[in-house]
Amino acid sequence: MPGPVQSIERAAAILRLLARGSGRLGVGEIATSLGLAKGTTHGILRTLQGVGFVEQDKASGKYQLGATLLHLGTSYLDINELRSRAINWADALAARSGEAVMIGTLLDGKVLIVHHVFRPDDSLQALVVGALQPLHATALGKVLLAYDTQAAAALRESVPEQLTRRTLVTPAALNREIARIREQGWAAEAEESTLGHASIAAPIRGYGGLVVGAISVAGAVDRLCPSGGHPDPALVEFVQNAAQMISRDLGAGRW
Amino acid sequence: MPGPVQSIERAAAILRLLARGSGRLGVGEIATSLGLAKGTTHGILRTLQGVGFVEQDKASGKYQLGATLLHLGTSYLDINELRSRAINWADALAARSGEAVMIGTLLDGKVLIVHHVFRPDDSLQALVVGALQPLHATALGKVLLAYDTQAAAALRESVPEQLTRRTLVTPAALNREIARIREQGWAAEAEESTLGHASIAAPIRGYGGLVVGAISVAGAVDRLCPSGGHPDPALVEFVQNAAQMISRDLGAGRW
Repeated sequence: MPGPVQSIERAAAILRLLARGSGRLGVGEIATSLGLAKGTTHGILRTLQGVGFVEQDKASGKYQLGATLLHLGTSYLDINELRSRAINWADALAARSGEAVMIGTLLDGKVLIVHHVFRPDDSLQALVVGALQPLHATALGKVLLAYDTQAAAALRESVPEQLTRRTLVTPAALNREIARIREQGWAAEAEESTLGHASIAAPIRGYGGLVVGAISVAGAVDRLCPSGGHPDPALVEFVQNAAQMISRDLGAGRW
Repeated sequence: MPGPVQSIERAAAILRLLARGSGRLGVGEIATSLGLAKGTTHGILRTLQGVGFVEQDKASGKYQLGATLLHLGTSYLDINELRSRAINWADALAARSGEAVMIGTLLDGKVLIVHHVFRPDDSLQALVVGALQPLHATALGKVLLAYDTQAAAALRESVPEQLTRRTLVTPAALNREIARIREQGWAAEAEESTLGHASIAAPIRGYGGLVVGAISVAGAVDRLCPSGGHPDPALVEFVQNAAQMISRDLGAGRW
């Protein structure tokens, strides 16, 4: 069996690098960051430019991600089965709960948001599809930590960031939280990622009962956790029901 | 100067292939489509899987686009200057016109939608960011045809598809339309891409006055073209004003 193709791995590393930080880097900066020769880096960048995966800023000569990636990224959404099976249930959950709904799956030790239904009111909201959120500080991420061994392994290899005063960061606190989530079957966080904000999530299971993602409601902590930081039981039930219907549609059967 | 890296070009071709049609293909289908040996194709696919650019369906063994592409694609949006400069003006245009607003730029002989503001009412609408729309049958595309030489060249190499009875498809009809757009400074289409639907667009210019994209309002033909198929002059003015403000913010200066 052939080994991985080195130039493709290097090209992918360049694209990931450009997706971070300011988003614009010169050949020298990229070469240094990845420990590659400048000539090699230049050859890969020119090829990536030729296929539309990177663009070169005319004024500065720096490179940035290219428009073809946007089209490929949204094409991924079109064929994503978790998302397509979940869309109608997510709309229904937003209508029942009156809150924004998100669906997430594990990517690179973070939660990748693959679907987002705005809160059904006329407030200004920004779409977060494609964003990566922390595992330890979001309800979606905590569900993945509790049920996805890859997520749990990713957390052990990282240092959880203290995002607010309430963020759980010690292994002891996170392990207690994970045990509780497994027992109750859902996760919540109140102001653990953002002040004033809370979220409640439940696991989505695919064929054979494996957890393939999570669905959450997210919004103001005063609405989601009205009594002393405890999640509203009605919202918890709505989220669990939605997760169960999606899991059924994904062929999870009884578990 | 080094030539392009063949394995990266082949990897990009596989990703583009997977973005089309059903989105799931076996190794053999991919190898045949691209004229590659099966072993070569398999090596590239395994590498793409390793970096998260493709995923393999466990049941069928077929390959599909991977989640990392969604993150890279939305990271492209974060650094896209046309979009970031245009967001506030697009919101204002949607509020003034009461219609959906889109911003597009040229990609692969099509219009890539980089921003979409929903029509400000409570109707169900689907986000089309990342979609590719035809140059010859949308107002956004016609603007690019009139002002972007690459777009015009791409059209000459293609056979425009007859999407509705009203779609312009002959070179003579399209050339007349392009001449008119250049004269009046804006483009419109009424039921040329979809029955019941119309759009009105104006060019966005970047540094030095070059056209870098277009902004449109889009909606029901009865609202956009209320009198005998002619675009509402008030809407045309709103679109042109928004395009000029964005162009000014992009450093177009006077032109």
